[in-house]
Amino acid sequence: MNGQFPSTLLEKAVGEFAKLPGVGRKTALRLVLHLLRQDTPSVEALGRAIVTLKREVKYCKVCHNISDTDVCHICSNPGRDRSVVCVVENVQDVMAIEGTRQFTGLYHVLGGVISPMDGVGPGDLEIDSLVERVKAGGVAEVILALSATMEGDTTGFYIFRKLEHQDVKLSVIARGVSIGDELEYTDEVTLGRSIVNRTPFNGTM
Amino acid sequence: MNGQFPSTLLEKAVGEFAKLPGVGRKTALRLVLHLLRQDTPSVEALGRAIVTLKREVKYCKVCHNISDTDVCHICSNPGRDRSVVCVVENVQDVMAIEGTRQFTGLYHVLGGVISPMDGVGPGDLEIDSLVERVKAGGVAEVILALSATMEGDTTGFYIFRKLEHQDVKLSVIARGVSIGDELEYTDEVTLGRSIVNRTPFNGTM
Repeated sequence: MNGQFPSTLLEKAVGEFAKLPGVGRKTALRLVLHLLRQDTPSVEALGRAIVTLKREVKYCKVCHNISDTDVCHICSNPGRDRSVVCVVENVQDVMAIEGTRQFTGLYHVLGGVISPMDGVGPGDLEIDSLVERVKAGGVAEVILALSATMEGDTTGFYIFRKLEHQDVKLSVIARGVSIGDELEYTDEVTLGRSIVNRTPFNGTM
Repeated sequence: MNGQFPSTLLEKAVGEFAKLPGVGRKTALRLVLHLLRQDTPSVEALGRAIVTLKREVKYCKVCHNISDTDVCHICSNPGRDRSVVCVVENVQDVMAIEGTRQFTGLYHVLGGVISPMDGVGPGDLEIDSLVERVKAGGVAEVILALSATMEGDTTGFYIFRKLEHQDVKLSVIARGVSIGDELEYTDEVTLGRSIVNRTPFNGTM
């Protein structure tokens, strides 16, 4: 970004937008100038939406997902299977799994994964509350649905150690070749694991 | 973006961010969740910066650039050469040219370029006010510093036709700026040289 801002108000708004992840000062200026071209109610709607969300957002007491209510609409849904708990990193993962319509149990949102590089330890995540939830009874299976990264694997192993002496089945989502991927371009670890963890075939995928 | 939002407040905030240019729903969700992790004052600072800018921003009466005051700090600077007016599309272009430190005159911000595809005609731009400014006297030279695009060239030619019978020298920044490139993204050396080496304008680029 070259040159001086012609207005301190503009500079301030650009500075605030440039704090967002992946938004540089040039992009921030473009976004702010776009907003300046919109009518006042539209701009106020954006400003209000952020502030209202921050002030009024709740986290579900049961699964710790973002919620409008004390207990989220998934945890309070009597149609969901309360004996299966799927452990995920964040709200995006809940939305992705809900989008598949393949899961009818409940969730447990950790709020991140163990990542010493980013200063995130087990105490920063909702792991103790997961253990409490299992100890409270009624949970037959915990599914680990974490990213297939070193941090995801580390977190999964930590949870395994915390839950291994509890009376609960622990499982992990299948790692394998993605639908639509070609074998030739699949990495060796994934391909190897997909062979070791092969499943019975009855003629349909 | 798969799945339902777990919170209507979240959905609303994401919806507002997704209206920004170049921001899809997935990016919007990532930005909003980032904001949720910040403390309340930081989030309110962003919200307030936008609304305050929109409410209180002014446009300079002389050059129509964004300004905190009725007349911007460039137009009110007694050290600037008032006889040379550089015509640009927008505030980013003023900032880019100021960044070169090669120009000591004043600006005239059109607020866009003629673009029938986008429904922008000459009447939507600050062209009449430019002609008035020249007619009022005191302007010896008008430099056209528009993007080297079809729209920029069209706008330049339109201004040429409007000013050709006025007692003013019309020049255009040197085409050191690559054809097809936009001013905002041109490096300082090229942009600076293009101003120093401006050439007389006879209606064709």
